[in-house]
Amino acid sequence: MTEHVIGIDIGGTFTKYGIVDKSGHCLKESFTSTDKYNDFDVYLENLTTEIEETIRSFHSRIDIKAIGIGAPNGNYYKGTIENAPNLNWKGTIRFVEKLKQYYPDIPIVLTNDANAAALGEMIYGGAKNMKDFIVITLGTGLGSGIVVNGNIVYGHGGFAGELGHMNVKHRGRDCGCGKKGCLETYVSATGIKRTVFKLMAEKVVESEMRNINFEDLTSKMISEAAKKGDEIAIEAFEITGRILGVKLADAVACTSPEAIFLFGGLTNAGDLLLNPTKKNMEENLFPIYKGKVKLLMSQLNETNAAILGASALAWKELEM
Amino acid sequence: MTEHVIGIDIGGTFTKYGIVDKSGHCLKESFTSTDKYNDFDVYLENLTTEIEETIRSFHSRIDIKAIGIGAPNGNYYKGTIENAPNLNWKGTIRFVEKLKQYYPDIPIVLTNDANAAALGEMIYGGAKNMKDFIVITLGTGLGSGIVVNGNIVYGHGGFAGELGHMNVKHRGRDCGCGKKGCLETYVSATGIKRTVFKLMAEKVVESEMRNINFEDLTSKMISEAAKKGDEIAIEAFEITGRILGVKLADAVACTSPEAIFLFGGLTNAGDLLLNPTKKNMEENLFPIYKGKVKLLMSQLNETNAAILGASALAWKELEM
Repeated sequence: MTEHVIGIDIGGTFTKYGIVDKSGHCLKESFTSTDKYNDFDVYLENLTTEIEETIRSFHSRIDIKAIGIGAPNGNYYKGTIENAPNLNWKGTIRFVEKLKQYYPDIPIVLTNDANAAALGEMIYGGAKNMKDFIVITLGTGLGSGIVVNGNIVYGHGGFAGELGHMNVKHRGRDCGCGKKGCLETYVSATGIKRTVFKLMAEKVVESEMRNINFEDLTSKMISEAAKKGDEIAIEAFEITGRILGVKLADAVACTSPEAIFLFGGLTNAGDLLLNPTKKNMEENLFPIYKGKVKLLMSQLNETNAAILGASALAWKELEM
Repeated sequence: MTEHVIGIDIGGTFTKYGIVDKSGHCLKESFTSTDKYNDFDVYLENLTTEIEETIRSFHSRIDIKAIGIGAPNGNYYKGTIENAPNLNWKGTIRFVEKLKQYYPDIPIVLTNDANAAALGEMIYGGAKNMKDFIVITLGTGLGSGIVVNGNIVYGHGGFAGELGHMNVKHRGRDCGCGKKGCLETYVSATGIKRTVFKLMAEKVVESEMRNINFEDLTSKMISEAAKKGDEIAIEAFEITGRILGVKLADAVACTSPEAIFLFGGLTNAGDLLLNPTKKNMEENLFPIYKGKVKLLMSQLNETNAAILGASALAWKELEM
């Protein structure tokens, strides 16, 4: 009987889960719907039923030691999901407390998805021997998990590490959070789309992206266009990297990490994003940090990184 | 025989030191010259001789348990002062190692002056029951000490918490660090002077500060002018508070502190600085933090705060 944990990643559309051992081997992973359920209790009933079926499907007995959950607006201290804009369940969802009714005897911990990604990087990825690093997740928005002295920074209220809402521009782009000019309105899959549309408005240069509407345009199309030499796409990556580089330099001035890892869909653009980010981060670093902060791609496999991250949270809890 | 530590604060002009008990009572404090000594070894010989004379001057025997030092560009991990721009000794000064030759049997710890201020606030000041807070020191420059989960954030290289060198403006004001547009070129005693001079250049409104040259103008004069209704002085504080408020909101997005304490000469301006800082911080906070971060004045007495901070570092080390 080997020891395992359950890692659960709650996304706006799907909830992924997996049974993971300590070395990061995922025995089995699956997913269920998140957005189909308007009633949280019904969602949880379905999720736990599915997980139990998965566990029973193994021939050998599985010893589940803990459950880790990554969720948008997840609060580690309270075990709650609070006012997550892309979930159906409004207000404060006492996730851990409710899940305890199904699993009363094992530790259950929850944090936000970017913190889970950072723990995944620390336990299974490129940050294995690091004590001070930052993970930036670049998807629809920009999330971040900050590790100081080997531990996630949760801060006073449990919600530290929201670098996506650092301030880039006074009266800048509308952000989903209600503010204007937040970093994620410029640097994210959505942010770079907005930059492409701004550039198409300003310039007369031809671009194949002029035939694609806003809803259809993806960051993958932008990076493909850039690789074919599309000027607007190339400039969009330059701008994205410049803004990200400057704000990463600010983040370094706070916690002085050994490395910053980039994770998520937008990083598939590779050097298109990495090079301008690195250049602008270096230029804007306080001299004492120059040349000392590694900017790296995440070493987690994107397909199950979220589950690994959530399971890393569970293993970390068992260590404590 | 009561237990004491020695707190040493190294400034560009003077080195202050004191014999401090655990409750923050300073038995005796004194100072010696820093800038008179071009040779570090001679400086240290003189400093230790003076300290020993101070200790011998007591009637009862003093039991010194540890020494804490606050120094510009102080590296906690290495016990060194590295390339401090306002000290005569260039390169890397192995301060702790050299002081160990005089005090081989007790712990000696060193950190930068803003980290020492943060420890002072935690042990003797307004942050006594806080685990997550930031101290901003507003003097000639802007220093900062960041506390996460009850510990100073030193980061990978030992130099975390340089908020004074966050980036405010691309190609902005020259900074002593070699970069342009750093926060401390706008927000510090020197920064507000520069803002006053910029406003005097831009505006035609009368101001008594037009009769004062740059070298003579102090932040105290600016706050006195503002209190008398001087438009330029009032606007200079508004601008200073706006820039500080936005960058504090960014710092909150990193570590989510319970409170931010302002310390140092510029804070004597009181509400002139506090009000615009608070307003702009609130406006630029990610909603999840709004109304939850206290912006407070330091509760340490400025005259011996630096010594208390250095002694707090020593007491903290003894606890570990």
